Amino acid sequence: MTQTANINIQRLIERIKALGQCGALAGGGAARIALTEQDKQGRDQVVSWMKELGLKISVDQLGNVLAVREGQQPGKPVLVGSHIDTVATGGLYDGNLGVLAGLEVVQTLNEAGISTRRPIAIGFFTNEEGVRFTPDMMGSMVHQGHIELESVLNTRGTDGTILREELERIGYNGSEPCGSMRAHAFIELHVEQGPVLEQEGFTIGAVEGVQGISWTEITVSGVSNHAGTTPMAMRHDAGYAAMAIATFARALAKEMGGYQVATVGCIEMKPNLVNVIPNSVKMTVDLRNTENDKLQEAESRLQQFIEEIAEQEGVTIQTRQLVRFDPTPFDERLISLVEMEADRQGYRVKRLPSGAGHDAQAFAPNCPTAMIFVPSVKGLSHNIEEYTSPDDIEAGANVLLNVVRKLAGE
Amino acid sequence: MTQTANINIQRLIERIKALGQCGALAGGGAARIALTEQDKQGRDQVVSWMKELGLKISVDQLGNVLAVREGQQPGKPVLVGSHIDTVATGGLYDGNLGVLAGLEVVQTLNEAGISTRRPIAIGFFTNEEGVRFTPDMMGSMVHQGHIELESVLNTRGTDGTILREELERIGYNGSEPCGSMRAHAFIELHVEQGPVLEQEGFTIGAVEGVQGISWTEITVSGVSNHAGTTPMAMRHDAGYAAMAIATFARALAKEMGGYQVATVGCIEMKPNLVNVIPNSVKMTVDLRNTENDKLQEAESRLQQFIEEIAEQEGVTIQTRQLVRFDPTPFDERLISLVEMEADRQGYRVKRLPSGAGHDAQAFAPNCPTAMIFVPSVKGLSHNIEEYTSPDDIEAGANVLLNVVRKLAGE
Repeated sequence: MTQTANINIQRLIERIKALGQCGALAGGGAARIALTEQDKQGRDQVVSWMKELGLKISVDQLGNVLAVREGQQPGKPVLVGSHIDTVATGGLYDGNLGVLAGLEVVQTLNEAGISTRRPIAIGFFTNEEGVRFTPDMMGSMVHQGHIELESVLNTRGTDGTILREELERIGYNGSEPCGSMRAHAFIELHVEQGPVLEQEGFTIGAVEGVQGISWTEITVSGVSNHAGTTPMAMRHDAGYAAMAIATFARALAKEMGGYQVATVGCIEMKPNLVNVIPNSVKMTVDLRNTENDKLQEAESRLQQFIEEIAEQEGVTIQTRQLVRFDPTPFDERLISLVEMEADRQGYRVKRLPSGAGHDAQAFAPNCPTAMIFVPSVKGLSHNIEEYTSPDDIEAGANVLLNVVRKLAGE
Repeated sequence: MTQTANINIQRLIERIKALGQCGALAGGGAARIALTEQDKQGRDQVVSWMKELGLKISVDQLGNVLAVREGQQPGKPVLVGSHIDTVATGGLYDGNLGVLAGLEVVQTLNEAGISTRRPIAIGFFTNEEGVRFTPDMMGSMVHQGHIELESVLNTRGTDGTILREELERIGYNGSEPCGSMRAHAFIELHVEQGPVLEQEGFTIGAVEGVQGISWTEITVSGVSNHAGTTPMAMRHDAGYAAMAIATFARALAKEMGGYQVATVGCIEMKPNLVNVIPNSVKMTVDLRNTENDKLQEAESRLQQFIEEIAEQEGVTIQTRQLVRFDPTPFDERLISLVEMEADRQGYRVKRLPSGAGHDAQAFAPNCPTAMIFVPSVKGLSHNIEEYTSPDDIEAGANVLLNVVRKLAGE
């Protein structure tokens, strides 16, 4: 890798803006919910750029699109990918950046006349957001063999549509079997969607993995009574037990430290009247950690507290697991490679976990995988005000370029 | 008071059941929301009993009904009273017991040929519950000069009706000026509506006064962020601040002890999603105490905690007082009289505060006032399963009888 090359930030920003015109929202941002007309427009736009770059395009049976730049030798490609579908109030960068930066990497190499030993592939995967059809990360999960194709094709959307029919309707029901291409490595450039890099003054995040997620629904059943006539010692207050669980979750995350986070996002009380002791509360606790043993520790300590407070308050508490994903660690060698490349180019780089799910998760069990994060202003994402500065995008894309060159040389 | 007399419990229970037929609900209980057709039926029934007892009946301009048994001498009567309106899911005893036990006292004295020095009056006061027209305790509050008659006559109900028109419609727009009768003393027999007497094995409660009530609405404004990507230290979690306030309120009541109670009955979180840190919470805190300085201490310590948690979590918290009533102490001599009478008759008696509001509150500033409580099974009230055993009702009515005799002899 003697010849230096740098991506063209103006061109990349123009492509980001142009893609944002597909499903553009007033005030900024875009709505390209997977397999809608807007998603089709976005797909057509990206495919036309892929064609302009002379890439060999394939569309698989779930609409995942892969575009390959030949290497000097045949072999498994270095795959750069993400998604171009958005939530209903999507920004311009989430997902799109990883795909369009991939195109920019290819175009930069093409224009500099640089060839690589291995092929380089750019992919975008169907329905990462999971807005209309669940689960999220659908395309990459099927592509990497974690979910059966047939089951997702029959998925019914929140609007009553069938996924298979929507895929046909927009013309992205391809013939390629899902997962026919296996990657030498997978790299995803993405906006952080959190506040850490910006607040701590870093330009590049070397993502260590995706946090494991544990969602628990907790239902507390107590006894409704008059707020005036019921002495404190005679209460079985479902509301108090719920509040105590919520404050315990915060104290637990603080005590465990590290990457442990705990969030009580949802509480519904009944009867929810000023002067009546609540008899029923439904709440959720969202626990995340990068290490599975610590996540299990958090889960088990929460459960223990739930049993203690139920006993103490004389209430009944039922718990139900809503979601449970193990943490997904990324490849140590690739994480270091991202770090070194960023460092070599003079960018401040921080290792950090991803708190949100990404297509890279689907690849991590099957091939060396890493992600590169760039800062999200105010940590905003899934929001039309999502923003990452051109300087930071340029930095991220140049790190991507050089990591890809290195891996494609192997 | 040489001649002994005792009330007729069968007759009293029959009247309670007969009144319960007016607006009877399937499964038990009754709905006689003030100034409805059902209330009119109940009023007509009670008035007909008053007439049978030879009482002199007056209806005032707010529909308060007073019935007087002459004394040996003219003078201010001993007034026994309560209300006969109910909530939508009312029981048979709340309010009704105090009125019907008054009739039973009069009938017992009549049948025993006992006359008293002072007159004895039985009253029922309009709209104690405040279901359709606010405020509650309306009739007694106007009667005792705490609220202007004209303002309440123009009150618009939750169903759009005007109070004055509803009063005319049921024919209880009397001619007597409100409050033309002043009482020598006011005594109200009532079900406890709480669990204390039953759980502690007492038959009679000598009510020391009505707790002061302080309702605060608290609005917490934080910042919504992703539950996975936002480190604990960077959060401004409106939900957490609210939970901390709720658990503080419980700890405060426990630490202060005595009659201090604290209830968080109402919480609304936004956006109320599993994986989003809440940015807005609206909640209520209900604080009550029998002593105003202690209630003020509770209010001020809550406010101090609110300021601390706002600072600590980096959120904004606004508070708004929804309701504030000073505690109403009852007359020490009358409380002792109730205690002594219960004791003399062999009933276990406990001094306790009332956690709910009662018509007696309106009288306490103007004349010696007391209340007699009898146990509520499971503390239930405002519920069709509200129940007090005939033995306990008999005990309460006999204590009432002898307290009234004593006061009417003064």
